[in-house]
Amino acid sequence: MSITRPRGFRAVGLPAGIKSTGAPDLAVIVNDGPRDTAAAVFTANRVQAAPVLWSRQVVADGRARAVILNSGGANACTGPEGFADTRRTAEHLAAELEVDAQDVLVCSTGLIGERLPMPPLLAGATTATAQLGAGTEADETTARAIMTTDTVPKTAEATTPSGAVVGGIAKGAGMLAPQLATMLVVLTTDADVDAATADAALRAATATTFDRVDSDACMSTNDTVILLASGASGIAASLEELSEAVRAVSADLARQLVADAEGASHDVHVVVRSATTEQAALAVAREIARSNLVKAAIFGNDPNWGRIVSAAGCVPEEVAPFAVEDLSVTVNGIEVCRGGGAHRDRSEVDMTPRETLIEVDLGAGTAAGDIWTNDLTHDYVEENSAYSS
Amino acid sequence: MSITRPRGFRAVGLPAGIKSTGAPDLAVIVNDGPRDTAAAVFTANRVQAAPVLWSRQVVADGRARAVILNSGGANACTGPEGFADTRRTAEHLAAELEVDAQDVLVCSTGLIGERLPMPPLLAGATTATAQLGAGTEADETTARAIMTTDTVPKTAEATTPSGAVVGGIAKGAGMLAPQLATMLVVLTTDADVDAATADAALRAATATTFDRVDSDACMSTNDTVILLASGASGIAASLEELSEAVRAVSADLARQLVADAEGASHDVHVVVRSATTEQAALAVAREIARSNLVKAAIFGNDPNWGRIVSAAGCVPEEVAPFAVEDLSVTVNGIEVCRGGGAHRDRSEVDMTPRETLIEVDLGAGTAAGDIWTNDLTHDYVEENSAYSS
Repeated sequence: MSITRPRGFRAVGLPAGIKSTGAPDLAVIVNDGPRDTAAAVFTANRVQAAPVLWSRQVVADGRARAVILNSGGANACTGPEGFADTRRTAEHLAAELEVDAQDVLVCSTGLIGERLPMPPLLAGATTATAQLGAGTEADETTARAIMTTDTVPKTAEATTPSGAVVGGIAKGAGMLAPQLATMLVVLTTDADVDAATADAALRAATATTFDRVDSDACMSTNDTVILLASGASGIAASLEELSEAVRAVSADLARQLVADAEGASHDVHVVVRSATTEQAALAVAREIARSNLVKAAIFGNDPNWGRIVSAAGCVPEEVAPFAVEDLSVTVNGIEVCRGGGAHRDRSEVDMTPRETLIEVDLGAGTAAGDIWTNDLTHDYVEENSAYSS
Repeated sequence: MSITRPRGFRAVGLPAGIKSTGAPDLAVIVNDGPRDTAAAVFTANRVQAAPVLWSRQVVADGRARAVILNSGGANACTGPEGFADTRRTAEHLAAELEVDAQDVLVCSTGLIGERLPMPPLLAGATTATAQLGAGTEADETTARAIMTTDTVPKTAEATTPSGAVVGGIAKGAGMLAPQLATMLVVLTTDADVDAATADAALRAATATTFDRVDSDACMSTNDTVILLASGASGIAASLEELSEAVRAVSADLARQLVADAEGASHDVHVVVRSATTEQAALAVAREIARSNLVKAAIFGNDPNWGRIVSAAGCVPEEVAPFAVEDLSVTVNGIEVCRGGGAHRDRSEVDMTPRETLIEVDLGAGTAAGDIWTNDLTHDYVEENSAYSS
């Protein structure tokens, strides 16, 4: 179970006919309260899809009653007409639920630049409202309805020491199929918390989990992570305990996103240590994680430390101070580079596991940071070139 | 003809046994003067190969008598021993030519992290000295000796209005085979100019040519572009006319580098117009040129404007001010996106030519900038994963 495991939530997912395949493509999640606390973080891309523009307004007051999500179309770069479609979607569901449209969040994922088929979408919203429920089936159908090229639905949950529950579902992330790169995440909790607490917990969690998944450096126009709190448990969780539970669920879901990367043959964890600041460590980790040369080498099971050191060298000195002669690189436990030069033989490195651990020591300070990515494979190129999108 | 077409230069290339294949791998270029003017620009990567560290010192006084270049090994991340190897190489050639080692530039390209085989390299330098000459064969063997996975040698030349000649050879660039991504360029001229003029002409030329080729955003540890002036023509070319001739030769060579990208099936020219500044235009062009989603779509002959707009949206507002609703995107002459939304049908775009022209109008100002790149293909992944390096 996941999003309806916390008390106070109902959900459902179903095929509404948005996808030509007839696969599930519409989901509704309702917060029955007593609280209607909501927080959300959105893509930093300046090109923002209509549902992102709408949901930003909705969540501004820290309140929301429901979320409606569709796959099969991103409703991005669709202009005023696209925004009107999102508004109509929210207003339609609001009428069905007898809530205010300004309390209905909307998420979409799919192709950019095309309008959504509104009649089936709105009809599906009506059907979904009648089928809302709680339990394993509700969680399962909801998680499945937001899938694009994900091979498995992604769910997670955690409980705070005081007994409040946090549940979540997720879809997407770069390598899964970057033309549909959108990451959509909905987290629910029955903790009795206000909007400020929910917002602080969500931002702290995403900063160290979803924000550190960088499949191919391409930001989606639709990325959205939502946290809804019903307060139904009556448990006034502290910011600390709620943050930890939200972080745990987010980390679990983020790792599942990386693991389900269809185009990938390796999940790559880049850990940078001994940096002057966390920002410096993350800048170096991100540069390595974004290097096509490093990613292609890993696909070839080649612990190519030269490419890793070269990528680190592309980070400006003012961003990440370090001396090249202090660099060490360890791949899957073997220190192949020390003092900026060759150390143990690369042949000692076992690259066959799906998970590849790259540890870089900058010898410049005490801060650390990590990024998760995937390797660059033929399947990645195939997925992103074979289909028009 | 190319580098020995300007008067005052001799050159030769030969197989010295550095490459296990027995292919040509060592080249020597000598400036017989009367002038020994030299200028050079080097990689911005903080990880700099031994020959780059050495050559920076040599060219600091604006003078050089010779250049020795090898393929088959980058001599990067090789520590003090690697630097000593470079110094020995310069001292050995200097003795053969009876010049000062401080006037001998060294360039290397090949694998990172391995020492060079010095005995065959030094013996080859001795042999090369005896075979130095001018003319088509000298130019041809020299251009071939610096090739790594280039399929053809790259040469170009131009003449200034006053009759001074500029010649040049080049190898490499990202997509050619990024594990050997180094770009090495040597330009020669018989113009009678001082170091300041040569340096100004070279920097102006590289800024709008080699610096605008961005195959895969990965900077090499060895990139070097050198300009030598012999003054043998007695023609005191003005900065303006020398700059134009050096720019013409550089642009010719840069285009040849893109065209020879082995892993690529398209040469992609990204042109951004109506930007507030040239820096803003280049930032947007570079982001588009570096997007794996855009590059993979082009490999699939898909004029995917949604990915292009999404990539543009990833550039921070403070770097490139523009409004998404003002964006237009034209691919191979068809305006597929106008006002940030769909315009003409993508099916109208002919993606079959090797050259793909992406024109983005930001509607924010009057500045423009362009970047050349290649598409992301199976061959690129194969080249960079199949071989250990």
